[in-house]
Amino acid sequence: MELFFSPLGCSMASRITLYEAGASATFTEVDPVTKLTRQGQAYGDIYSLGLVPALRTESGELLTENAAVLQYLAARFPEAGLAPSDQIGRARLQQWLCFIGTELHKTVFSPLLDRSAPEGARAYALAKAPARFDLLEHHLTGREFLLDAFSVADAYLLTVLGWSVATPLELGKWPALVAYLERLSQRPSVARARAEEGRLYAEERARHRAA
Amino acid sequence: MELFFSPLGCSMASRITLYEAGASATFTEVDPVTKLTRQGQAYGDIYSLGLVPALRTESGELLTENAAVLQYLAARFPEAGLAPSDQIGRARLQQWLCFIGTELHKTVFSPLLDRSAPEGARAYALAKAPARFDLLEHHLTGREFLLDAFSVADAYLLTVLGWSVATPLELGKWPALVAYLERLSQRPSVARARAEEGRLYAEERARHRAA
Repeated sequence: MELFFSPLGCSMASRITLYEAGASATFTEVDPVTKLTRQGQAYGDIYSLGLVPALRTESGELLTENAAVLQYLAARFPEAGLAPSDQIGRARLQQWLCFIGTELHKTVFSPLLDRSAPEGARAYALAKAPARFDLLEHHLTGREFLLDAFSVADAYLLTVLGWSVATPLELGKWPALVAYLERLSQRPSVARARAEEGRLYAEERARHRAA
Repeated sequence: MELFFSPLGCSMASRITLYEAGASATFTEVDPVTKLTRQGQAYGDIYSLGLVPALRTESGELLTENAAVLQYLAARFPEAGLAPSDQIGRARLQQWLCFIGTELHKTVFSPLLDRSAPEGARAYALAKAPARFDLLEHHLTGREFLLDAFSVADAYLLTVLGWSVATPLELGKWPALVAYLERLSQRPSVARARAEEGRLYAEERARHRAA
């Protein structure tokens, strides 16, 4: 398996998932600005939209979109227990993956993290945050994870919430979210993925400054 | 089962799915502006974020988020064949549901359909459209559906693309998308859902004008 990723991007959720499963994979880094892999290949030739993650499966299929890649990995390594297998559990997992992808990632964070986004787009995104964080705060109060156990939805959520530090969002207003992030940061898979991708992110920034 | 919907909203995909399955359900209309059901109940008391669709399942669970509701309905009525059941087929379905939800619905259409969105947010959304429509155009050229057969992803895609008429997007630049929409409009489930929700949408508009 080969995972196309950008350091600290939403693809980090797939790395965490692979570490949780104790699975091995080739990690191919994609520069989110130049859209080149670290080997110099044009990522647009692999996936035209240029977004990560993309997963080259063992049978050679290219799978894109975070919710699909995460659920594929959870199903590929069922012994890791990263997704419920009953009907309503699966539906709840899909609900959270969809909520994180549509309401947090694309509605709130994408415009805030994009330096080329016009001010109106950033203001619009910022105004959408409180209701969505309130919903999460309510759900996570008194709960360890989004579902009954750690799942790929947690891997995605902690990755996305981690981006807050690069935005004007002050997460301290939502104490259950802060506690959730701190708690999950202790998890070995998360700590390892964060440390590795943090280092790669710093290197990416240094390359951009030097260019 | 009870489906909370707003006329011509993304919840129309769930209505189409129910019609495809020949399933019965209670359809509860939610006014997207007042956030009241047609019976006068505050929808925020049912789902705090106020978004449709939400599905009250037969066991009384409230399920939100379009991708989750659609996959739940497909699994609930397997004889309708609205979702692949093999691992890679399921992954492809999830890939398209995620793409439509994140890249089309939330990135492109939501800001364009929201009259309160600032100009910068609308311009930002509009600029994102061509690459996403190009990807779809490429995929749908020579294909009848997103997957090998009609699926809940088609129900979602045709609903979202149908919103183009209310935006500055000129779909005519993507002939495979236009042909796809025309083809699927002939499908009885789609024609029926569109006619019914079109009528309800006109009534909703009339109520707003009168208010």
